[in-house]
Amino acid sequence: MSVRYLTARIAQQIDEELMGSVGAFSIDQLMELAGLACAQALATVYDRTRYPRVLVCCGPGNQGGDGLVAARHLGMFGYTPTIYMPKPGSKDIYKRLKTQCDNMGIKTLPPSSDAEALTTALSSSDVILDAIFGFSFKGPVRPPFDEALPSLTNSKLPIVSVDIPSGWDVEAGKIETLGLEPDVLVSLTAPKEGVKLFKGRHFLGGRFVPKIFADKYQLNLPEYPSFAQIVEFTTVDGSHRL
Amino acid sequence: MSVRYLTARIAQQIDEELMGSVGAFSIDQLMELAGLACAQALATVYDRTRYPRVLVCCGPGNQGGDGLVAARHLGMFGYTPTIYMPKPGSKDIYKRLKTQCDNMGIKTLPPSSDAEALTTALSSSDVILDAIFGFSFKGPVRPPFDEALPSLTNSKLPIVSVDIPSGWDVEAGKIETLGLEPDVLVSLTAPKEGVKLFKGRHFLGGRFVPKIFADKYQLNLPEYPSFAQIVEFTTVDGSHRL
Repeated sequence: MSVRYLTARIAQQIDEELMGSVGAFSIDQLMELAGLACAQALATVYDRTRYPRVLVCCGPGNQGGDGLVAARHLGMFGYTPTIYMPKPGSKDIYKRLKTQCDNMGIKTLPPSSDAEALTTALSSSDVILDAIFGFSFKGPVRPPFDEALPSLTNSKLPIVSVDIPSGWDVEAGKIETLGLEPDVLVSLTAPKEGVKLFKGRHFLGGRFVPKIFADKYQLNLPEYPSFAQIVEFTTVDGSHRL
Repeated sequence: MSVRYLTARIAQQIDEELMGSVGAFSIDQLMELAGLACAQALATVYDRTRYPRVLVCCGPGNQGGDGLVAARHLGMFGYTPTIYMPKPGSKDIYKRLKTQCDNMGIKTLPPSSDAEALTTALSSSDVILDAIFGFSFKGPVRPPFDEALPSLTNSKLPIVSVDIPSGWDVEAGKIETLGLEPDVLVSLTAPKEGVKLFKGRHFLGGRFVPKIFADKYQLNLPEYPSFAQIVEFTTVDGSHRL
């Protein structure tokens, strides 16, 4: 049995059930484990001695929250993250996550950062964590991200994308020219339909899906090794297999 | 510089600041990372193939919450945890953490479990996770734990204690005869004064203390390896050193 690739609707449904009365998770818990997994996947591929400076790009939604958690953990791991979050989310949790990063001495670019400021930040970064758009993304890409995505691509820096590369359609994949081309992908909970043909290194994180949910949605998740919070999909003949 | 051992008062103060306006952490976040660290420390020492059945003993306070989180993660790691929680905490978070365990198919002994039921559960367990009393414990040990602690000791099973072995004074150490004698200790945030002379394997978890707090309280925490959530203290001549 191979892993199930989720539609945007099913991904949304699982997320709601995890945080509803059945799943009983708080968003704080899920974001903490998701963000930790993203930080660990980045650290697995990009060693902090060679890639110390991480530009963590956060969108205004929950994906951005995962990014903020990842930034904090990367700081704990000895990296020097910088946060690019041009449209900060308004929810209380984002503010708290941001404060937690501030307490780590993690710098954030001013919210009004223009393309030039982003390019300057990119020139002093070694790797990008893309936590801009997640599984609830619906195109087209709006400002300021319509200018930000090409800047990230043009930097030629390695990119680690969270869940779905920013600019990609959650189900159809890379259909917009400004969609990123990440080197590494960290799917959360389960991979989405749009990344079926992704060719880079592909990790799964979010080791919190209880058996009743995994069974109900026939996720056929790969087995995580021992007590790890991430598992890497292996590629056979270019297609992702378990 | 060696690690600082905390008094009960300082431990309480750091905890409050982490969750106050400065630290900005939610209890959900801290418990998630603390419980994950406990589960990983247990899994590091007691392999699931030889020690599959874990009796997770939870007190009525936050320590019990850490235990519930650890039970869920142990279930994720492939162990078969059973929860002993004779006095369930009333806070909403404990109920949600318990539901999360239920969704993993993790069994809980009935709340009214007597000493006999506990002894029966112990006879079909391979290792104990002691999350009964934490750094806010003040003796004496009251029912039903005054009977439970000797049962745990008499089982001769290996014991992994969270933060402070149950029955120990947070600062004076093992002064009550019914205090447990754990094989493994998982200190959270920073070790407490009472465990200075602890001779077993000693881990630190809770990789969430921001630098401003670590500096302010001169914690001199050991360096966690790469992206691990636990670090083991090394013992030189019987005393714990970094």
